[in-house]
Formats: sequence, structure tokens, C-alpha cells
Amino acid sequence: MDEVTLKMIELLKTRTDIAKEIGEVKKNIGKGVTDEAREDSLRGKVISLCNNIGLDETMATKFLNFLLNESVKVQSRNKQTHLSIFLKAKSLEAQGKKIIHMEVGEPDFLPPKIVKDALEEVFDKGFLKYGQVKGMPVFRESLAKYVSKKFNVNIQQDNIIVSPGARFSIFTAITTLLNPGDEMIVIEPAWPAYKDCALNAGIKVRTINTTVEDKWEPSVEQIKSTINSNTKMIVLNYPNNPTGKILNEKLQDEIIQLAKENNLYILSDEIYSQYAKTSWKSILSYNYEKSIVTQSFSKSHAMTGFRVGYGIADSKIIEKMAKLEALCLTNVPEAIQYVAMKALEADTSNNTNTVQTRLDVLSKKASEMGLDFVVPDGAMYLFARINQEGFDGVNFANSALEKGLAVAPGEGFGNYKNFIRLSACQDEEVLVEGMNILGNIMRTNN
Amino acid sequence: MDEVTLKMIELLKTRTDIAKEIGEVKKNIGKGVTDEAREDSLRGKVISLCNNIGLDETMATKFLNFLLNESVKVQSRNKQTHLSIFLKAKSLEAQGKKIIHMEVGEPDFLPPKIVKDALEEVFDKGFLKYGQVKGMPVFRESLAKYVSKKFNVNIQQDNIIVSPGARFSIFTAITTLLNPGDEMIVIEPAWPAYKDCALNAGIKVRTINTTVEDKWEPSVEQIKSTINSNTKMIVLNYPNNPTGKILNEKLQDEIIQLAKENNLYILSDEIYSQYAKTSWKSILSYNYEKSIVTQSFSKSHAMTGFRVGYGIADSKIIEKMAKLEALCLTNVPEAIQYVAMKALEADTSNNTNTVQTRLDVLSKKASEMGLDFVVPDGAMYLFARINQEGFDGVNFANSALEKGLAVAPGEGFGNYKNFIRLSACQDEEVLVEGMNILGNIMRTNN
Repeated sequence: MDEVTLKMIELLKTRTDIAKEIGEVKKNIGKGVTDEAREDSLRGKVISLCNNIGLDETMATKFLNFLLNESVKVQSRNKQTHLSIFLKAKSLEAQGKKIIHMEVGEPDFLPPKIVKDALEEVFDKGFLKYGQVKGMPVFRESLAKYVSKKFNVNIQQDNIIVSPGARFSIFTAITTLLNPGDEMIVIEPAWPAYKDCALNAGIKVRTINTTVEDKWEPSVEQIKSTINSNTKMIVLNYPNNPTGKILNEKLQDEIIQLAKENNLYILSDEIYSQYAKTSWKSILSYNYEKSIVTQSFSKSHAMTGFRVGYGIADSKIIEKMAKLEALCLTNVPEAIQYVAMKALEADTSNNTNTVQTRLDVLSKKASEMGLDFVVPDGAMYLFARINQEGFDGVNFANSALEKGLAVAPGEGFGNYKNFIRLSACQDEEVLVEGMNILGNIMRTNN
Repeated sequence: MDEVTLKMIELLKTRTDIAKEIGEVKKNIGKGVTDEAREDSLRGKVISLCNNIGLDETMATKFLNFLLNESVKVQSRNKQTHLSIFLKAKSLEAQGKKIIHMEVGEPDFLPPKIVKDALEEVFDKGFLKYGQVKGMPVFRESLAKYVSKKFNVNIQQDNIIVSPGARFSIFTAITTLLNPGDEMIVIEPAWPAYKDCALNAGIKVRTINTTVEDKWEPSVEQIKSTINSNTKMIVLNYPNNPTGKILNEKLQDEIIQLAKENNLYILSDEIYSQYAKTSWKSILSYNYEKSIVTQSFSKSHAMTGFRVGYGIADSKIIEKMAKLEALCLTNVPEAIQYVAMKALEADTSNNTNTVQTRLDVLSKKASEMGLDFVVPDGAMYLFARINQEGFDGVNFANSALEKGLAVAPGEGFGNYKNFIRLSACQDEEVLVEGMNILGNIMRTNN
């Protein structure tokens, strides 16, 4: 066995040397063939070899992925995202500058009043000690009822895990359900965390690029041709961040059908469901045992700072996610869980109305200014293309900051260099003021 | 390049076949040579081959680790730990049974009164929104001052990251500082999370077993002989969970020196520093740029349920940890941070006295009963061997539960089947009652 291993190490050396040479050549002739196409062809060859010699395909492709990662080395690309602009804006504010925040998805209104009362009750009610990983049974029961009623489905306590934000449920779902070498499909533009969580876990991400021309709709054919034997999960996020898109029911049905046929997990991030303007259907309603839905109190209840969300899935999936949550952080503070549980009693329809009115104002203004966008079906954002020669969202976002306006560069959501994302999380007058600043910059740049 | 890769796949097939055969043989003849010794020898061969052919040693040993993992497959051992006993105890309580909790390290006293006031202030003070990953600057500043004063060191805000419990800082430190294939040294008995976090990240754990006969002291020679070129970190935890051990200063100095000489990270979990009975020195006082110290409000301030702790390290290390914290959960809720910040103002010396008195009571009782243990230098536990023919901590813990006593089996802390851990987190009378139940079971078993 040692002999075989040592022979493999020798080949590893040969392979590394060749990779270096190819890297040099590529640098000299420009980009050439994309890595993705080359990798696909190599994967095909490996799979057919596996069939010939009787080696487990999964093992071999994981091995291949290990080799590819070793030669490529995933560099954390220092992309500018809504978050980096947010941090810059914050430090400018600390210097006394006035900034209009249209870069982050953080409602400017307060959490429900009941949250204040609940915080005052925490100590005397004794929510002070270690608790169960998946969350307090009474809270999970409330969530199960809330979700079942709201989305007209049948969800039990066992299907719920409370997590510090939907983000953590996304992290645990991707990390525990997939293995290094597995592949995950993300439809872009998309919130960057899906991809980042996958890369962190050694998962290969295949992106499907949608366009403003196609009204941000992926085609079933696109998805079909992206699926291979390593594909294990597809991520959906409707109402979408950043485009506000909601898929029409027929297309959504077809995508779910495709996922079922290929035995894929569906990770459906539905934190903007409260802000759907047109007809929207939760993935829960398909009753698919390999679906994971994430929800949060951040947007619906304006509780971003409380870091509380939840995952909804088959109990076997929940158990897997719980193992990693236990390892990382034991559980979500029961104080926070109690507060969130009380918040469920609040009527938040006002938040919905507010955001929708603001989105309308934003859309009207953007349309007057000649921006290219699709009127959002929901969520809290407008994703618009600026049709100017050489426009670069990152440069634009940075120069807009100097004029007192923070916007999110499109690049953070995928290959959308000439787009920016505008958040409808401020008062209407402030939004109009922000859009006027934007218009001024555009005129100066022209 | 494809050709080389395909040749490697063929060898992978050969290797897998041989591994299967060896597995069969091993099953038939019993255990034989340990995997660890065989792996060490193979690693030696690989390294010398690397020197001969000029291949990067780190890359090759990572590759080897990948191969070894593929054939071994890390199974999550379903060990019984203090946590599984705690959960069983909780469900018995739910059925109306009275249980004395000597299994978990959760102080029975309340958080400081100021915590109640702080919770009531959170809403009006506006700690409700997204915040900075590493924690609120004002809180990190308070922590830096608190730590600097308490341990007589010079710590700045940049050296602090706030995390949901020390656990999460341990998770991020291990995951971001080490790479799959790297090795980490854990001195056992130890809290299981260090090992679990490492396994989760594909890190190889080398354990050093200490004994009650040697007063739980590791020898420098033991550590020295465990270090190899892949060793990247050593974990320290003094005052220790579960033994209560504090290293004498000379031995600690020597271990730190050894770590420096070998360029190892030192992860020092110091959450029991508040409960040191004998002289104790924080690892911070060595000013070693590759040390990471974790602290928590759980034990010192009886705030287990708030899930708030922090990591202290060089700012470059903090930045790495922050990247993973941002990916997983954005930040710790500012509400929780504010409450913890206020808790820093409280005088917690009473907690220290209470736990020390209880530990004394526990030690006296255990000594009368003829248990084998070393009187703890600190922390909140007593780790004792039960000298009975065929004693098994797991069976014992399960049968004790039926008699109304929860204890933690030694197995959860390493290879300590005939040990149990007893927590001093109850009133003295309750502890005596618990020890009497324990004595009864021992007499029945004899």
C-alpha cells in the first residue's frame, strides 16, 4: 500500500509542475479556455475511467476536486459588497458626514413594541441558562404553528431549528448536507453568503446567470444542463435579493420537479416572504423531503440586531444541522428566543405596506431616470443597470459615498459589474433625496 | 495533465482495493499494528520522498491525509458525554422525577442583578440593529481594559473578538488557523469540543494522556515526541475541565517554550480562571503572538444562557476568526453584548467563594468514600476514579440517573472509562445528598 501511495505522490509532483507551466502559458496568452470547461471535460474522462476499472465514481470525483482545488487554490476574492460599503459609510458617519443608507437591507423602523416588554421579562422568567440546541420546545412549537398557518402547510416542532439568523441555518445546511467535492447550483444575481458558505465547506458552486432582459428568470434548460452526478443542492431565494423577482408558479413547479428528479436538496431562503407583492408560494407547500427553508425575524420584524432566524426541514435534516449548531455555539440565547417568540404575536402588516410603498417610489424615480430594471415583485430592493460607457458599480459606489449616498455594487451579487442595488429601507423623502444624488452623479459622469 | 490525473485515479483504485483487503485481514487477526504507528511511518516515507523529488512537503502531507481519511472515514463516535446525560436528566425531570445535577458545569446561582437592569434598557438604548462582526467597539474596549487589569497584561480593542460563547471562538480559531491535514495536540482528559472542532475541520488530533497518578501533569518529553512537521497547534485548558488541575509555573513555562520553538499556535481556554484556587498565570502574560485565549461570561458571571464569550489574540488572528464569524452569523446580538458589558461592572467574587467552598465539600466527601482523585486546584469539578471491578462510567451514569443523580461519564473526556466527573454547581446540602446516592450505588455494585 505504501508503494502505491508513494507512486501517487510522485505523480502529484508531475501534476503540480504541469499546472505551474500551464499557469505561465495562460498568463502570457491571456485567459484562453475557461477552467470550468476544462474541468468538466476532465471530470467526464474520470467518470468513464471509473466505469471501466470499477472504482466508485463519488470517491474519484471527490479526489479530483481535491486535486483541482490544490492547483487552483480558492482565494478569498476581495470583492466589494454591500457590507464593505456599509462599513465605509459607518466610518464616514463617525467622522461627522451625513450618509443616506441605500446599501443595506436593514429596515429603519423599530421592532414591535412587544419586544421591549419581553426584554423586561427575561430575567424574572428565568431565560438565563443552557437550553436545547434546536431551540426551546415552546418556541419551536409556536414557530411550527405560525409557519403552518401562514403558508398553509403542516409543520411540526421537529421540523424546526432556531439559529442565530437565517444565515447560520444556511451555513449548517450547506456544510452538513454536502461533502467536499459535491456541487451546488446558485442562480445569480444572489446574496453572496450562499456561495461563500459553499466555498468554505469545499463545495463547488455552479452559477446560473439570469439577465434583466429575461426578467431575471432562469430557464429549466439552463438548470438541467448544469446538473451532473456531483450536483447535490440547488439554492432558491424568492422574493429575491437583489432583484425582487418572484418566479411564476409554473416555472417554480418545473424547477422543483427537476430537483426531485435529480434527487437534489433545495435550499430555499424565504426571508423576504413577508414582502411579496405578487403571488408567491413557499417551497414548503411542495412537501419535498429534501427541501430546507430558511426564515428570519430580521426583515419581517425589523429585528436584524437580534440575530434570530430558523430552518424548516425534515426532522432528519434538522438533526444534522443541529449537530453543527451544538458544536459551534450550543444554542441561541433563550433570552433572544423568548423575545422572538413574543414578537410572533405582533401585527407586522404595517411593515409590509411601508416597504411596498417605498419600493413603488423607488421604481418610479428609477424609471424617470432611465435606469434599466425589472419592477420588483417583492423584497426590499431595486437592482438596476446604469447604462453608461465604462460604468463600474464598485467605483460608482465609492464615489457616491463621497456625495453622501451609500449603494451596493452589483458585483457583490455575481457577474453584474454595471448594476447597483438600491434598498428601500428609508423614508420616502430620504429615498428621493438619495435618488437625486444618484442622478447628479450620473449626469456628471456622462 | 489529464493523463497524469487519470493515472492517479487508477492508483486510487489499486489503493482502495488494497485497503479493503487489509481491512479484512485486520478483522480476522484482531487489531494488530495501530493505524497511528503505520500512518506515522508512511508519513515519514512521504516526507523523505518529497525532499528527494522537490515537492512541497505541506502539499504532499495534506494529500496523504486526504487519502487516509478516504480509507478510514471519520465516523462520529456516539460517545456518551455530560451533555447526553444532561439531556436524559432533563427528560426524566419533565416526567416529574427529581434529579440532582452534578453532570453539567452550570452554576446554579443567578447572573448579577445589573443584568436585569441592562435587559430593561436594551430597547430604549437602541441595541436593535446590525453591528460590527468583532463586537461593539465600546464593549471590546471595556473587555480590553478588563482583561488587561485582571491579568496584568496589555490588551487592545483590536485583540478582542466577541463570540457566542468561548465555544465559537474555539471553533473559529481551530477552523481558520489550521488546514485539513494539519495536526493539533490535546492534553486529555479534556472538554470534548476541542477534538470535535478539529475533526470537523479535517484536522488530525494527537492526544497526550495524563494520569491521576502523575497528578494530571503532562511531561515535556511526551509533548516533544508528539510534535512533527504537521503539528500546528497545542490546546491548553487550565484551570482544567474536568480535573481542576493548574500547571505549576515552571512546567507551563516549558510547554510555552516548546510551542514557541516549534512555531505552534497555543489555544488556551481560560474560562475557569475566575475559579483558580492556587496560583495561576494566564497564557496572555507570555506575550506570544501565536496564542489565542478564550474567555466567557458563562462560568464567571453565571451567564451560560446568554451565549457570550470572547477570543483574545494578535489582531491578525482576530481578523481571520472574524471572517468565519461574519460568514456564520454576522455578529453577537448587540442586546447580549450590552448586557455582558454591564455585567463586567458587577462584583463576582462571591461566585468564586461559593464554588471553592463547594469544591472543598465535594473533595472531603469523595475522600471519605475512597474515590481516587487529585484535589482540584481550581475550576468547578472533581474528576474521580471508581476502583471497582469492571466499572464503566457510562453504565454507572445511566444507572445513577435512575436513582436521581446525574454525573458525567469520564469517557466523554478521553480514554477514562473508569472515571466520572462531578460538578460543584449545587448547594452544599444537595452535593452531600448526591454523594450519598453515589455511595449507595457503589455499595450495591460491590
